[in-house]
Amino acid sequence: MEATTHRAMWEKLDLDLEAHDALLEVLGKFYGDIYLSQNNRLQGAEYLDFVLSEVHGLRIQEIQDAKANGRKVIGSFCVFVPEEITLAADAIHVGLCAGADAGTELAEQLVPRNTCALIKSFIGFKMAKLCPFIESSDMIIGETTCDGKKKAYEAFNEIAPTYVMEVPQTKSPAARDLWKSEVKRYLSEVESLTGQTITAEKLKKGIRIANDKRRALQRLTALRAASPAPISGRDGLLINQISFYDDPIRFTAKVNELCDELEERISAKEGVAPTNTPRLMLSGCPMAVPNWKLPYVVEGSGAVIVGEESCIGTRNSRDLVDESAETLDDMIDAIADRYMKIDCACFTPNEERLDNVTNLAKKLNADGVIHYSLLFCQPYSHESMKINNVLQEAGIPMLSIETDYSMEDVEQLKTRVEAFVETLA
Amino acid sequence: MEATTHRAMWEKLDLDLEAHDALLEVLGKFYGDIYLSQNNRLQGAEYLDFVLSEVHGLRIQEIQDAKANGRKVIGSFCVFVPEEITLAADAIHVGLCAGADAGTELAEQLVPRNTCALIKSFIGFKMAKLCPFIESSDMIIGETTCDGKKKAYEAFNEIAPTYVMEVPQTKSPAARDLWKSEVKRYLSEVESLTGQTITAEKLKKGIRIANDKRRALQRLTALRAASPAPISGRDGLLINQISFYDDPIRFTAKVNELCDELEERISAKEGVAPTNTPRLMLSGCPMAVPNWKLPYVVEGSGAVIVGEESCIGTRNSRDLVDESAETLDDMIDAIADRYMKIDCACFTPNEERLDNVTNLAKKLNADGVIHYSLLFCQPYSHESMKINNVLQEAGIPMLSIETDYSMEDVEQLKTRVEAFVETLA
Ligand code: SF4
Ligand code: SF4
Ligand code: SF4
Ligand code: SF4
Repeated sequence: MEATTHRAMWEKLDLDLEAHDALLEVLGKFYGDIYLSQNNRLQGAEYLDFVLSEVHGLRIQEIQDAKANGRKVIGSFCVFVPEEITLAADAIHVGLCAGADAGTELAEQLVPRNTCALIKSFIGFKMAKLCPFIESSDMIIGETTCDGKKKAYEAFNEIAPTYVMEVPQTKSPAARDLWKSEVKRYLSEVESLTGQTITAEKLKKGIRIANDKRRALQRLTALRAASPAPISGRDGLLINQISFYDDPIRFTAKVNELCDELEERISAKEGVAPTNTPRLMLSGCPMAVPNWKLPYVVEGSGAVIVGEESCIGTRNSRDLVDESAETLDDMIDAIADRYMKIDCACFTPNEERLDNVTNLAKKLNADGVIHYSLLFCQPYSHESMKINNVLQEAGIPMLSIETDYSMEDVEQLKTRVEAFVETLA
Repeated sequence: MEATTHRAMWEKLDLDLEAHDALLEVLGKFYGDIYLSQNNRLQGAEYLDFVLSEVHGLRIQEIQDAKANGRKVIGSFCVFVPEEITLAADAIHVGLCAGADAGTELAEQLVPRNTCALIKSFIGFKMAKLCPFIESSDMIIGETTCDGKKKAYEAFNEIAPTYVMEVPQTKSPAARDLWKSEVKRYLSEVESLTGQTITAEKLKKGIRIANDKRRALQRLTALRAASPAPISGRDGLLINQISFYDDPIRFTAKVNELCDELEERISAKEGVAPTNTPRLMLSGCPMAVPNWKLPYVVEGSGAVIVGEESCIGTRNSRDLVDESAETLDDMIDAIADRYMKIDCACFTPNEERLDNVTNLAKKLNADGVIHYSLLFCQPYSHESMKINNVLQEAGIPMLSIETDYSMEDVEQLKTRVEAFVETLA
């Protein structure tokens, strides 16, 4: 990562320059080890390397330029915040989830020790002044999903004002009504922030941009069913991670180019690993940038990852918003319906996830699944047990991993993953 | 506890007789140590001792007799389940929360290790066949409060069918609508179960019985403001615990008798501890029978407990249902409104709890507060930090305790509590 040319901007954003330099250095090295060392990488991966290297640099510059032109920036922590509406108001929608073990000690002053690493990370990033996306956000959106986040936003609100959307906990008609009213409330809030009136025409455009992005990601998912695997799991995850930061139209175009390249590879029967390499699907909690720990361990253990059933993965791209609506209210209904299909473990019951995981594993020709829960994440830890049962019935072996962002257990994870991979070979 | 005369009934309920005998023996000893050893106990405590000694015996016999006469039994785990409606259908409402470290290993087959002791306990009690209340229940009601319970009910449902009510996560008008619709859904469900039609008249009666119970408990709470403390915290907690098991009309009468006796004591300036004994209020997670660990430690450390800000305490008795409604729908509104006042940490924001804790501590003339979170309870762990801040501002010292049901940390807790009590003396 380029740590020198953007210093003035970072200083203006009140980042802690020294700590930020140190973070970029670690990340750069980590990225080099995990990504740049790969064999048979796609040509299109240049885009990924570039975006990632400039994620705190050129991308922030772009965002600052947009802000100077009057556009607003909305940051969120969950795929429940309807991006369509943000885009309809010509605002920029970014993900604020964080995947690095930085600022943890500071975060533990605000949230309990028994909180998942993802939450501690975004709080730590704010407290340690490390995140230019948080500092660039004109509005930060929280949501009532898990207890950890729901309560953490109360504390976070004191250091970074946070608007909270209520996500219901079931999918009953009454819960769906509540959610629709929350979608409308968000729409009004975005209108006030941006000074724009969201018309049917603008919302239609927002829906199209978001759907196009999802279609590109769906195309990528489908191509990963091929054998030999045409792209590494690390790169697959990275693409999904970047989808939360880059401009959606550019991103869509680039992912489609990447998919063109993948199609060529597939017809040439080329891949990133031999055909007999055990194929694994990851399932569970989202892996935010730069949380590449498990993919690194898995793909260093003789397996290849063929899909990510998570919010930084298929859970965020699987369902499209119905594009046939013409009136504003019908579009809002279509948006509400699309989001109610998200099979987050925070819902009860959440039986559809059991089917979705099984079907995806089959579609991707996965030989096994690794279920990934962040330590102290109760919703996904619970579902790990249920998913293990349904996968067992479907004859698909599963390994359950519970971990955090620290590197301390890497060797231990390697041992467990290698043992699992051996049973599949 | 009487372990011999009720064996046939327990056997019919399919309890594990041997394990149940062992449990009763441990409890009997524990109760003797913690309760029967107290000085200056109330005469009315005979009622408490009797109910507790017969909680798995005569009370279950009574419930079985009622069932034989066609009455139904509804078990719940949370004060959000509207007892008024249960009572309106002449059904029996019992609490199923459990406070003993039994069946934990079994429970960990169904729920993650990082789950609070209360949840593991009720699941363990079911799996180890130890709870005659669960086995007597015709309907078990869960609710979407914390992640731990919400997801645990999915697993519990497989061994004990559980009907889940959706409790919203905020107190917005839309959330209140959702809750009202859930209250109505519960009412229909109770009607189907019991074959009764809940009329306005019957619901009015249910509301009155529940309110009378709350009024008796409010009276008790108010009397505990007196100095010297007229009743021990152990007995105060026990009364609140028994309110979940005993017949509500008998319970109300007995608590009012107890309060008469307390009033006499207060005018005679008699108490359970000298006037200069540090007075502590407990605040936080509910302590279900037989979870007397912290009161035992606190009152063995030279302090007296003057109140419990918890769901097995003032959170369940503070608010009455408005009794002025005459139509069924108005009564349902009044019930919905009353329950939306519950300041459970599962809500966000939950600012009213901060005020309620501070006000109660002042009203009870508490010298300090011990905040009690069960290990892995994220909602209350978060609020512990916030409550510490507001109490500090109010000049009321607070000690934060995080523990589970095991006895391993008793000595360590004693040391911390004693040190805290010393600062107050
Ligand atoms: S896992 Fe659930 S809470 Fe987390 S981002 Fe996805 S939908 Fe939101
Ligand atoms: S990983 Fe789990 S605990 Fe952490 S924010 Fe996501 S849902 Fe919440
Ligand atoms: S603390 Fe909350 S979840 Fe627990 S019984 Fe009380 S209201 Fe229900
Ligand atoms: S103590 Fe906390 S985690 Fe346990 S059931 Fe109650 S609210 Fe849930």
